[in-house]
Amino acid sequence: MVSCANPDSMVEETHNPLLDNGPMNGNSRHGEAKDEWNGVAEWKIRANPAAVNSKNPIRDVMESLPPVVARNGKLEISLAQGDPCAFGHLLPPDGAIEALLNTAESSMFNGYAHSAGLLESRRVIAKYHSINSKLAADDVYITVGCSQAIQLCIEALACPGSNILLPRPGFPIYETFSSYYGLQCRHYDLLPDHDWEIDLEQLESLVDCNTVAMIICNPGNPCGAVYSHEHLSQIAGLAERLTVPIIADEIYAHMVFGTRKFVPMATFSWKVPILVAGGISKRWLVPGWRLGWIILHDPRGILKRGRVVEALTRLVQMTIGTCTLVQAVVPDLLLHTSSDFHQKTLLTLKLGAELCFERVKRIRGLSCPSAPEGAMYMMVKIDFLDFVELKNDLEFAAVLRCEELVTVLPGTAFGLKNWIRIVFVAPLSHLKEAWDRIEIFCQRHVRRKP
Amino acid sequence: MVSCANPDSMVEETHNPLLDNGPMNGNSRHGEAKDEWNGVAEWKIRANPAAVNSKNPIRDVMESLPPVVARNGKLEISLAQGDPCAFGHLLPPDGAIEALLNTAESSMFNGYAHSAGLLESRRVIAKYHSINSKLAADDVYITVGCSQAIQLCIEALACPGSNILLPRPGFPIYETFSSYYGLQCRHYDLLPDHDWEIDLEQLESLVDCNTVAMIICNPGNPCGAVYSHEHLSQIAGLAERLTVPIIADEIYAHMVFGTRKFVPMATFSWKVPILVAGGISKRWLVPGWRLGWIILHDPRGILKRGRVVEALTRLVQMTIGTCTLVQAVVPDLLLHTSSDFHQKTLLTLKLGAELCFERVKRIRGLSCPSAPEGAMYMMVKIDFLDFVELKNDLEFAAVLRCEELVTVLPGTAFGLKNWIRIVFVAPLSHLKEAWDRIEIFCQRHVRRKP
Repeated sequence: MVSCANPDSMVEETHNPLLDNGPMNGNSRHGEAKDEWNGVAEWKIRANPAAVNSKNPIRDVMESLPPVVARNGKLEISLAQGDPCAFGHLLPPDGAIEALLNTAESSMFNGYAHSAGLLESRRVIAKYHSINSKLAADDVYITVGCSQAIQLCIEALACPGSNILLPRPGFPIYETFSSYYGLQCRHYDLLPDHDWEIDLEQLESLVDCNTVAMIICNPGNPCGAVYSHEHLSQIAGLAERLTVPIIADEIYAHMVFGTRKFVPMATFSWKVPILVAGGISKRWLVPGWRLGWIILHDPRGILKRGRVVEALTRLVQMTIGTCTLVQAVVPDLLLHTSSDFHQKTLLTLKLGAELCFERVKRIRGLSCPSAPEGAMYMMVKIDFLDFVELKNDLEFAAVLRCEELVTVLPGTAFGLKNWIRIVFVAPLSHLKEAWDRIEIFCQRHVRRKP
Repeated sequence: MVSCANPDSMVEETHNPLLDNGPMNGNSRHGEAKDEWNGVAEWKIRANPAAVNSKNPIRDVMESLPPVVARNGKLEISLAQGDPCAFGHLLPPDGAIEALLNTAESSMFNGYAHSAGLLESRRVIAKYHSINSKLAADDVYITVGCSQAIQLCIEALACPGSNILLPRPGFPIYETFSSYYGLQCRHYDLLPDHDWEIDLEQLESLVDCNTVAMIICNPGNPCGAVYSHEHLSQIAGLAERLTVPIIADEIYAHMVFGTRKFVPMATFSWKVPILVAGGISKRWLVPGWRLGWIILHDPRGILKRGRVVEALTRLVQMTIGTCTLVQAVVPDLLLHTSSDFHQKTLLTLKLGAELCFERVKRIRGLSCPSAPEGAMYMMVKIDFLDFVELKNDLEFAAVLRCEELVTVLPGTAFGLKNWIRIVFVAPLSHLKEAWDRIEIFCQRHVRRKP
């Protein structure tokens, strides 16, 4: 054994802003271990500090919450996690299950697939998403859900000393991965009073020559906003002028139910290279199947020239890909899902969104600046002048859960203090009951400073 | 836009030792892109150099090989990739398909699972693997195949400035991940003339206080070795004395068909903390289902104290996990697979290994120091004094493929020059045909220096 100086521990104490600041703190899973036998102290194992200090706030909160016990016949209603399957009222297309059964029985898809995914599935994904120019299978990488698609896009672009532009409020995993891969996170604001459009002037002010990408989420999580063709065109024009590629998180593509149509970011790929992150999780109602994709819209070969294509290829060769059986089902899902299926989902979302929007209006202290038109989320503002006894959104969410068994995520998890995020994909009966409880809760706590 | 100095490109030119050195080089997928429109040159996108320079040699070679065209009725026979499903003669247990069908039809497993995996599946995995002390669900992390299990173990332990001990020859993904996460790789030798046992003296000499782990693969890829209780006890004793935890790659657990029984590394967990990487891929013949696991055998709480448990929890919360449907099938696989099923696989492996071992003996210039007793691989030594026209294992493999349509991986991919790795899980008819061709090839090329 070679001897050397004993290094100090490099793991910093972690801070958990969601849990440290509010009464949600109920997690003590990782306390000090006891020395059960002699000799334990000799072991100087240290974990990777970057891993210890990383955090996915949604998962962290969801998996740290102490279980709530049903009271007076009340069960917990969770409007916290964006899982359309959580309530059992929305099921994947019948054809999807059938295709999966046939795939499993064929015995042809038990082995490894190509690292980027089954060729035929990538071909279909490419064809399905061709907009300006014809995409090929090589422009597609099948991933372990859309989360991994986002992860790999960020990882592939994460040069040392670089920065990335992220929406505020935004899906927190953008920051989780960006920070983990050493990127400086710069947040641009979404404007609540302008349908959550991007503050483009501010966005521009954040860019420098070390900016590797801007992430644009449309239809939007957590606001439910759907951007117009004009706004997307402005974003793309700005990205072109600043030569900053776009990572377009379009996991909610086509999930719109308001006045605006869904416009794919790739519509503007002749201006700016676009890495689309998408997948089957939300639109086909199978988030647990863990199948996403990256689609490169790069007609001018800018990403290829910058070796981003090579980086992605290397990265998927390391991670090897998602379940081959599910990969084999993708062509069927994309080509043969009836429009009735999608319409049914959209109607559920529309009714849920409308109900939530109307109920918010009736409750003093809460407001929602614009009705959601897409995805399955809305942000609700809390006026703490009306709730002087509650400190902030973390406490609001924690006390609401404790008293009324309604779970929502605090806006802080998405970078926006004093808001809460509501998932409106639940059945209407659940939503009604949840809002009854929220209303009672607010009535009980509403109190202005004297 | 903030202005700043334009940094130089940080992406180094990559080198591909397998392809640059031999005639296998047929990959020009990532050449220079043409400037199809004006303005492309203004885009200064740079990919993450660590990603560009990362490499999984097996995937890289397999996915870069130009297709071979069948000649004179000869089809390609690939003995390259460790995929037991590649030939169609080995199928997963009937019960597994049935369980998967029931799971899919139940509609209960389409949503997200806990980041560490479904609780019930983790419970069963924990119980199934309890040896010295009773494991709990919390000791198990379900992963996207065993590759991700290995990845996360390495990632969780990868402190800056540290090093890790890897077998030579060894499964190349150990080095891929270790290098990617900034660990210095130190290789210990497996001794071909001692049943591929570890050179323990050398192993000890490589350890210093920055050594975060040693990876032990048993049953072994690429040698097919199975370690005795005594040898494993020696390894564990050494690890205990040096206070170095063990990452035990046991994806081939119980896949033994010789004189030696499989002894789990966790037998020695009272001496040393052990992170077992395993999964259903090989033993249950479903590598494409992408389900692996990490099992922490840490009765003294050493990994917990070092925050390795916390690091793993954080990491799985980022990556979110593998297909929920497949997770739900695990209890059935582990509890209800018949021993007949496993015996059939083992018989296939045994007959394949014996055939290969006998055939090697007959061929001048080739040798195999010890008969494989486990996993599905063997290493064959090439005496280049007998093949003066062939430069090395890379060229041997490339010319063999070109002339005889038999694909094997060069030992260089596993860190051992002038050997080749043979996958013997193929049907006997394929193996016979492959060896007939290898024999003819060797007879044609055998030539000593005058």
